[in-house]
Amino acid sequence: VNLILLDPGEVDFSGNVILSDSRAAHVTTVLAVAPGDKIRVGLLDGPLGTALVQSILDGVVSLRCRFEAAVPPPPPVDLLLALPRPKVMRRLWPQIAALGVRRVILTNASLVERHYFDTHWLEPQTYLPLLREGLQQAKDTRLPQVSIHKRLKVLLEDELDTMVEDGMRLLAEPSGGASIHTVLKASRAQRALIAVGPEGGWNAFERDLFTAHGFETINLGGRTLRSDTACVALLAVVHETLSRGTPL
Amino acid sequence: VNLILLDPGEVDFSGNVILSDSRAAHVTTVLAVAPGDKIRVGLLDGPLGTALVQSILDGVVSLRCRFEAAVPPPPPVDLLLALPRPKVMRRLWPQIAALGVRRVILTNASLVERHYFDTHWLEPQTYLPLLREGLQQAKDTRLPQVSIHKRLKVLLEDELDTMVEDGMRLLAEPSGGASIHTVLKASRAQRALIAVGPEGGWNAFERDLFTAHGFETINLGGRTLRSDTACVALLAVVHETLSRGTPL
Repeated sequence: VNLILLDPGEVDFSGNVILSDSRAAHVTTVLAVAPGDKIRVGLLDGPLGTALVQSILDGVVSLRCRFEAAVPPPPPVDLLLALPRPKVMRRLWPQIAALGVRRVILTNASLVERHYFDTHWLEPQTYLPLLREGLQQAKDTRLPQVSIHKRLKVLLEDELDTMVEDGMRLLAEPSGGASIHTVLKASRAQRALIAVGPEGGWNAFERDLFTAHGFETINLGGRTLRSDTACVALLAVVHETLSRGTPL
Repeated sequence: VNLILLDPGEVDFSGNVILSDSRAAHVTTVLAVAPGDKIRVGLLDGPLGTALVQSILDGVVSLRCRFEAAVPPPPPVDLLLALPRPKVMRRLWPQIAALGVRRVILTNASLVERHYFDTHWLEPQTYLPLLREGLQQAKDTRLPQVSIHKRLKVLLEDELDTMVEDGMRLLAEPSGGASIHTVLKASRAQRALIAVGPEGGWNAFERDLFTAHGFETINLGGRTLRSDTACVALLAVVHETLSRGTPL
């Protein structure tokens, strides 16, 4: 953990916070700080800052925070993901938040098994702590917004335009299509939505739906990757390409 | 599995192979092929090809293979990795092979705990099946060459030059340094060796050693990532950057 994430309701007007949960344990045992030390903090969906440790008593940590004026911008990347197996989804949550994603849009596909939607890894009380873990790792405060869509057609036809208004839409395929660099540079887009399919890929009907809704096919160089590896790899390359700005 | 990987010793001069292990089970149950069907095969460190299923009897699969003339080139990327926790190393093996790495150079560092070297995930009989799993996923035949070095100083001073002769040397840091794109494009390198540190980073002595041995510092945009996420993200970006060729 490289940052202690605080909820807005926990901090009073003077910047005082009292921690007594697992964050307090982390501060005292892992960070091993003493009164007078400073630690890095962040306000969920708000600014980063530093906190002065005022006291540590019986596992209760008292902090006084100073926050920066500016709030980090939301990440310039959205992820549309065919719901993977529960074990893979569990592994992905913290990595998605650490890499930086504004919206996580989980969807059905012909090769997604129905029972994947029944996992407790799709319940906010189980995935929110994993997303927060990723933010604390990456020193970010911007919590990804998560939505779950059981019908891909309805998602693409009726819902997606209101959720993701701007930026380039990319459909990742193991082969075919251009490189991420080529497509993003040609579009001069500042943001991207990247769609990642199930292990066996999208079917022809699904692919046509994506194309009809403005997605351009891209690939990562012809290697077929497991969906968790593919997500991390694609998010990294999209971030890296967008961060270089738009000169062609 | 998108490819069945065969060992050179298993294939006779006419291209015949008899499978009776887990690959036979995969061919009959997951791929669900019948005699007359074709499947994708590859010869370890040799060419890709296709195989005609000749017979399936009591779980024994008989194949006749035809291989392509050319052998896939080794991946243009080497990885030098401070040994992570055993659980993380286990997760990384198949992903490293799937993303494509020529050499995996595992090393000690001040923040690597001694007992990490005792794990069975560093024994060839446990990691080779995981590397093969990654190759079969990504349809590659080039097995990464693995070596383990308990002294970083000896590795950098005496061993590395004979192991990795060519290409750009990159040291990944959470912040500081240039982007991978900038460094690789300026160098016009065709290959890269990327060094990834332990969760807490390299210390100042280690960083100086890398710099003295030709490594240039790069970062992935300021987010601190877990070492497995960092490895996958860095390998993906290095591959993507190298694959775009050398025009500046």
